[in-house]
Amino acid sequence: MSKLKGNLLYGQSGGPTSVINASAYGVITEALKNSDLIEEVYCMQHGIQGALNEDFFAMSIQDKEQIEFLKHTPGSAFGSVRYKIVDFKEDETDYIRLLYIFRKYNIRYFLYNGGNDSMDTCYKIAEYMKHVDYDIRVIGVPKTIDNDLPYTDHTPGFGSAAKYVANTMQEVAYDMLAYPKGKVTIVEIMGRHAGWLTAAASLANLSGFGPDLIYLPEVPFSIEKFKSDVRRVYGASHQCLVAVSEGLVNEEGILIGSSSGLKDAFGHFQLGGVSSKLSNILNSEMRISSRTIELGTTQRAASHLQSKVDVEEAIEVGRRAVQLALKGEHGLMVTINRIKGDEYKVKYGKHPLSEIANVERNIPESMINEDGNGVTQEFIDYALPLIEGHHVPPFKAGMQQFARFKK
Amino acid sequence: MSKLKGNLLYGQSGGPTSVINASAYGVITEALKNSDLIEEVYCMQHGIQGALNEDFFAMSIQDKEQIEFLKHTPGSAFGSVRYKIVDFKEDETDYIRLLYIFRKYNIRYFLYNGGNDSMDTCYKIAEYMKHVDYDIRVIGVPKTIDNDLPYTDHTPGFGSAAKYVANTMQEVAYDMLAYPKGKVTIVEIMGRHAGWLTAAASLANLSGFGPDLIYLPEVPFSIEKFKSDVRRVYGASHQCLVAVSEGLVNEEGILIGSSSGLKDAFGHFQLGGVSSKLSNILNSEMRISSRTIELGTTQRAASHLQSKVDVEEAIEVGRRAVQLALKGEHGLMVTINRIKGDEYKVKYGKHPLSEIANVERNIPESMINEDGNGVTQEFIDYALPLIEGHHVPPFKAGMQQFARFKK
Repeated sequence: MSKLKGNLLYGQSGGPTSVINASAYGVITEALKNSDLIEEVYCMQHGIQGALNEDFFAMSIQDKEQIEFLKHTPGSAFGSVRYKIVDFKEDETDYIRLLYIFRKYNIRYFLYNGGNDSMDTCYKIAEYMKHVDYDIRVIGVPKTIDNDLPYTDHTPGFGSAAKYVANTMQEVAYDMLAYPKGKVTIVEIMGRHAGWLTAAASLANLSGFGPDLIYLPEVPFSIEKFKSDVRRVYGASHQCLVAVSEGLVNEEGILIGSSSGLKDAFGHFQLGGVSSKLSNILNSEMRISSRTIELGTTQRAASHLQSKVDVEEAIEVGRRAVQLALKGEHGLMVTINRIKGDEYKVKYGKHPLSEIANVERNIPESMINEDGNGVTQEFIDYALPLIEGHHVPPFKAGMQQFARFKK
Repeated sequence: MSKLKGNLLYGQSGGPTSVINASAYGVITEALKNSDLIEEVYCMQHGIQGALNEDFFAMSIQDKEQIEFLKHTPGSAFGSVRYKIVDFKEDETDYIRLLYIFRKYNIRYFLYNGGNDSMDTCYKIAEYMKHVDYDIRVIGVPKTIDNDLPYTDHTPGFGSAAKYVANTMQEVAYDMLAYPKGKVTIVEIMGRHAGWLTAAASLANLSGFGPDLIYLPEVPFSIEKFKSDVRRVYGASHQCLVAVSEGLVNEEGILIGSSSGLKDAFGHFQLGGVSSKLSNILNSEMRISSRTIELGTTQRAASHLQSKVDVEEAIEVGRRAVQLALKGEHGLMVTINRIKGDEYKVKYGKHPLSEIANVERNIPESMINEDGNGVTQEFIDYALPLIEGHHVPPFKAGMQQFARFKK
């Protein structure tokens, strides 16, 4: 295998997770260890846009402490982006610019950290660089709270978000018991097409305090069925805790909560509003008092409640990405493969970006209950190990400390 | 002082906090230590309603482990209530029933844990029992995330809720930086008349990542001023994080967010909806993309992020309440008094319930900035010590363990 000497360029893309910066930590520290081949680590500001704008953070000039802080800093420490790069056969402009920048900075390792859309960007860049015969190793580093990347058992970011959702549901469920006659509480959880994170609300039930009903985007949503489910649960206990995915769709595939009609840069409808809509139906049509909780960005940003397993795996996928690149691999994404057995164990693998880009992995039918309003034991067995272990960030005077970098 | 032998009755009332059960822990363990005078500790199910219904948990039959779990169990472990007891001069029915129950169970110590409304209940019962010459010691145990009880430096429950709000604001603020052109994010925070908890959002700024604008119910809210504030901040940085109290009112004292028009058992308007209303204004009138986060009950229930200071003080006010009762005190509430000095220290005191019942303490003007959209250093100095120390609850397989009691 040819030894390639040069610089590494790393970027973050798509919605942040509470551990994407832990992956950055893995990439940066592993790259710095291999200073014989990697001379400088540049982190793009706002992902691929930073590369196009020549907007980098050089890691050699940063304080070590700030790099350590990455392990528990939420958000995207180097900035993220939702910029969709077009196929180079359609328009080569961005690619020509990228090639110029790569040559200028002698970028020989390109690592891109993101979800489905970002893996598409990563794939397109990998393909172009092969096409123009520019010697570079392009590797994808997976992240997404949605857990919907294919060919990997799960995705870094999911475990911590799942832990936050499950613990919050547990707390809300216990809080609800305060009053003899409660309300129907509807908690709206992130997830566009895949219901993994909403399903994680079910983990709260292991403690005896959790949601009564869970509605996933994988199951066509019927308002009549919802009303009958709530009537049954609320009728029996005068309490009802519901978890709904923001991405719920009806039989015709139309979003239940798409109130704004706005689309984002990738052409996806902006979500939100399912819980209010359902709450209004309960209040007006059924005269059942109801309230909503929309967790919003707190789900992906709650660094104060990270899963230790998730943080460690996030660091490791970053490290493995560097190792794969150094071995000469190109056009792959790091994967996490679960080893069968009683104890939770994983090994790390790789998979071609071509088969990952833009593909979404939904919850399989076997993990959804027959009634379509909850999960099966198979889901619990799958998800529980991912929220294990408590990673307590360093608090100073009651507040967390987040990383800051200089240009 | 006469030694009074009998049983202790403890109850929880009003909205839960993440540490009200820590106060229950303090009451129960201190009472069990004094078994020469206190033979049994009964906890009412659903506060005063449990007393009227003879619905008790006897503490002597509970597992010790469950009592330990109280220290980090959110909600109201024994159930809460929003039942307003009328003046006995108007209608004696409830009081006659209570007296019957107190005699039947030989209740000689009555401890009631709650906020303003609950201290009113506590006061009325204390007065009645004196009126009918029934020998009992009635003591109030303070709690409220709103921090609006008078004659005490602060109230248990506030510190942990403040810590949750501040850390969540910090996480959301950092998350927002991911994109070069952000949105206006409006976070709606609990607090009917007093803005203490909303003001606590400001603590996030100590880390460099916090809200740009804070609107408190103490300052009459002007939509024009709000729009001009947002225009200024967003214009400069293309980011704007706003903290609003759910209880915001305009110059005429009319709630900005009172959309439902519903009242609760105490005749208070049900709150909520300020953030959506303001967000709609930004989206439609100013064409600025905006989103909302309504934290809802998670603010009072987030036991996974308790302040150590708050937990310890909550336990201590419970203990002190028992000690005051044993000393023969009656008709008082335990208070927390801050000792002046560089280091944060408190001593515990007492104050007559008659002066506390139904009185609300607002944020003084000196803690609000001149512009009416933030706080002063005086508030920071006041609030920061209250969120200090991290109380990590015991996690088992990634989930917390909450107390359960048997009848």
